[in-house]
Amino acid sequence: MSRKGMFISLEGPEGAGKTTVLSVVSERLKAEGKPVLVTREPGGIKISEAIREVILDNDHVKMDAKTEALLYAAARRQHLVEKVMPALKQGYLVLCDRFIDSSLAYQGYARGLGIEEVFKINEFAIEGMMPDLTIFFDIKPEEGLARVLNNAEREKNRLDKEQLSFHKLVYEGYEQVIRQYENRIVRTDASLSKEAVIENVYKIIASRFM
Amino acid sequence: MSRKGMFISLEGPEGAGKTTVLSVVSERLKAEGKPVLVTREPGGIKISEAIREVILDNDHVKMDAKTEALLYAAARRQHLVEKVMPALKQGYLVLCDRFIDSSLAYQGYARGLGIEEVFKINEFAIEGMMPDLTIFFDIKPEEGLARVLNNAEREKNRLDKEQLSFHKLVYEGYEQVIRQYENRIVRTDASLSKEAVIENVYKIIASRFM
Repeated sequence: MSRKGMFISLEGPEGAGKTTVLSVVSERLKAEGKPVLVTREPGGIKISEAIREVILDNDHVKMDAKTEALLYAAARRQHLVEKVMPALKQGYLVLCDRFIDSSLAYQGYARGLGIEEVFKINEFAIEGMMPDLTIFFDIKPEEGLARVLNNAEREKNRLDKEQLSFHKLVYEGYEQVIRQYENRIVRTDASLSKEAVIENVYKIIASRFM
Repeated sequence: MSRKGMFISLEGPEGAGKTTVLSVVSERLKAEGKPVLVTREPGGIKISEAIREVILDNDHVKMDAKTEALLYAAARRQHLVEKVMPALKQGYLVLCDRFIDSSLAYQGYARGLGIEEVFKINEFAIEGMMPDLTIFFDIKPEEGLARVLNNAEREKNRLDKEQLSFHKLVYEGYEQVIRQYENRIVRTDASLSKEAVIENVYKIIASRFM
């Protein structure tokens, strides 16, 4: 697929501050007149929302890890086809909060399905539409988790409630993924002040997109 | 996974008579005291039923073929883990109305996604749990389709309503799959009388399972 725009994904452990930073940086880019689309799966896409409901349904306690991985890949596919690809064709800078690397780190590594295995089904889903650039919000799992737990406003989701041991595995998973895709993935120190992270992320994006 | 039982799938184009024949043959096997489980995806498995609802939802007209293939693989995985594998462990003869070859023929070949590509995501889903034996109900697409259209009692589903050209592609797809798995897949002439097909299918199964 031809893409006139640029596709950037943001990755990192829980509590890394992706969502907050993304919101400020995208507003700044928009204020400068850049065509920016901020999204995250399922991204308001009806079919992806319906798939997500199946994943999160509290009655589905018997869900197998591979079933879950296939459902995430299906939701990703539809979000990509309906929302991300059309925006890229129109020349948008698409900033996506989590993409394939989350599946590789969480399901492939931390859940033990295998990074290669999970990559295969995602390769089928995304058909070579890898991000042009991925920004990894680097924060130690202990610190990220402490931020999440101390944030009274944040509604704790299933992943937030996982043990520290799981979050450490996720971090290890990301480390592996970064080694594998060192040309695509750029680290940013997410333990700095919010203002500093915003400035750094803005610069990374601006230097590529301007 | 160790399996004490035997896993047999039944495949074929629409109107081949699989369901009717399966019902009679399984009753006969049960009457002889054989432990038989007849199933088909989603097979009453809550999670697989929920996934199937997403696939069949009439509001989901924008569903991409790859999204659909991933959803079928997810439903297959859960049905396999929750229903087929436990039955095989208990020594059951599991007779499954359609399995992986349907995805290969319909989605891989007829929908043009590629047999190899669709096999990969299903390989992830089934983890080597290929059927011990597959019975292909061989009937020319023209004849199968005529049967479906002439059967006033049968509620026509989305696939029944496809053009003959699509059903021909499905048949071609099955031909390819059979060439690829000639040791696993046995043909039975499904254009014969119902009684003759029942007798032949019974013999194929009995010769392997007794």
